[in-house]
Amino acid sequence: MATNDASANGASKFDPNFTEHVINLMSPETKPRHRQILSSLIKHMHDFCREVELTQDEWVLGVNYVNSIGQAYKKNRNEAWRVCDILGIESLVDEINHKVVTVEGVSPTSSTILGPFWSPETPFRDLGASVVQDMPKDGQLTLFHGVVQDAETGKGIPNAVFDMWQASTNGKYDVFDPENQTRHNLRGKFRTDADGKFWFYCLKPTEYAIDTSGPSAELLKTMGRHPYRPAHIHIMVSHDDYIGVTAQLYPNDDPYLETDTACAVKPDLILDFKPAKDDKNGATLDCEYNVYLLSSKHKPNSTMLMGNANQNNF
Amino acid sequence: MATNDASANGASKFDPNFTEHVINLMSPETKPRHRQILSSLIKHMHDFCREVELTQDEWVLGVNYVNSIGQAYKKNRNEAWRVCDILGIESLVDEINHKVVTVEGVSPTSSTILGPFWSPETPFRDLGASVVQDMPKDGQLTLFHGVVQDAETGKGIPNAVFDMWQASTNGKYDVFDPENQTRHNLRGKFRTDADGKFWFYCLKPTEYAIDTSGPSAELLKTMGRHPYRPAHIHIMVSHDDYIGVTAQLYPNDDPYLETDTACAVKPDLILDFKPAKDDKNGATLDCEYNVYLLSSKHKPNSTMLMGNANQNNF
Repeated sequence: MATNDASANGASKFDPNFTEHVINLMSPETKPRHRQILSSLIKHMHDFCREVELTQDEWVLGVNYVNSIGQAYKKNRNEAWRVCDILGIESLVDEINHKVVTVEGVSPTSSTILGPFWSPETPFRDLGASVVQDMPKDGQLTLFHGVVQDAETGKGIPNAVFDMWQASTNGKYDVFDPENQTRHNLRGKFRTDADGKFWFYCLKPTEYAIDTSGPSAELLKTMGRHPYRPAHIHIMVSHDDYIGVTAQLYPNDDPYLETDTACAVKPDLILDFKPAKDDKNGATLDCEYNVYLLSSKHKPNSTMLMGNANQNNF
Repeated sequence: MATNDASANGASKFDPNFTEHVINLMSPETKPRHRQILSSLIKHMHDFCREVELTQDEWVLGVNYVNSIGQAYKKNRNEAWRVCDILGIESLVDEINHKVVTVEGVSPTSSTILGPFWSPETPFRDLGASVVQDMPKDGQLTLFHGVVQDAETGKGIPNAVFDMWQASTNGKYDVFDPENQTRHNLRGKFRTDADGKFWFYCLKPTEYAIDTSGPSAELLKTMGRHPYRPAHIHIMVSHDDYIGVTAQLYPNDDPYLETDTACAVKPDLILDFKPAKDDKNGATLDCEYNVYLLSSKHKPNSTMLMGNANQNNF
């Protein structure tokens, strides 16, 4: 029995064996991975409650909040996913699963969250083609180009697949905007040339807000945060001999780089859009970005993240 | 940039500034208590993800699970509340909010979870009355008695209110069992006499399982746990000059004392039912239990937990 004064502070005044008791309720037959995950979850949830000395009313508020998440769920609106994004959890899980550094300290291009809008049906397009099938009035045509390189040798990687997708200037992706966009607008797969080079036309991307109704928006409000994602171009770059990279690329002049609602910006994923000079196809902007891949020998059995690509997010 | 090998283990290989970044997204105007709670929650959720190196698939499973909790919510079925019970969170929050120990190390009777079945309309009954309005065939009538005492002086406390409620032998409370039970069956409030004594007739309680459909039951299954609560009698004991105690009392021969699905058993809340001798009202069992209260000077402004009493649990 503790002898603390009623007003004393600190976790020690609570039963020191309680968390262990709850963990030990698991049966000896519990699968080891389930045991590991649930033990850690219970420990951290209990530590959280003790650390902030959660009141009964706050706990009930939390219970009601968790219930409200699932109640807000519907097709194309995965509310728990959004809440995870706001809390940085999707981005962190992405890092945990995709961070690779060689023993010499060499890193490939950073991974960041896939999001829900990747399509397995995006068509291959010729190098130099445009993904802009439907040009919005306020679109800024951009010649986008670069080299997919081996992160260790710097050599170009021929035959790599550079898959890209982006929202239009209204913040919407093709499938959610049938009035303005034809299927596969602003999507394309390109195969790098003999030197590892790729080039095509796209739009300078536009920032957009996530849905601002429902429990995820309430959470943002409580935190005093805006609902914006910085403008971005999604990329998924792959080659059989290399560890694939899924990322988002952000213009360096975007106002939301530091405060992305999904916490998914990384320093090496920044784009510099420059004025284009006499582009033959009328592009007003030029953007160069090189992608660095690591040989798959550094992560045997690595695969691209595609298993859950069709989970709805925003 | 970390220089760990790709196969190296440990949280250090992940961005050491990420969690701080997410916490710092909160606006300077965020209310201090919100900031404290959300900072701790973000920190513990991130630490959990890193500690178990949560895979993308496991995370998606978790996202879907959280959504399913709210989808299972309905009147008289608060699924998030149940999940909290299974993870020991309601019991822990109860301890955090109600644990009191004097500087000399004196504790009152332990608090434990209120549950959803307390009624503010329970009638006062005379000392010696029975709460058994509808006797089930398998009911064991019990003379229940004891003294409400000052935990420091040992003196009986006159005029304390001993409020009790219990399920019938079918595991149901009056309001959820209109076919077998009249209103207020197995509920009663008693006022202690000049010596702090109380006595009345009730049933030896019966264990029951929580609802075994839905996400909370899935969690129990994953953990290899049963859905049973040990048999219990609920009590809420109060007096204007003392800190009130809400608890559940459990027969010492119950098979689920160690494995309560709601993790709410405490060592001083155990009852010993003995055979009754020649009871004038036909009770076959006799049970004595004394309640110890601490003077309210040890916790100024303490109130009974009644604010959320009508939140539905099971």
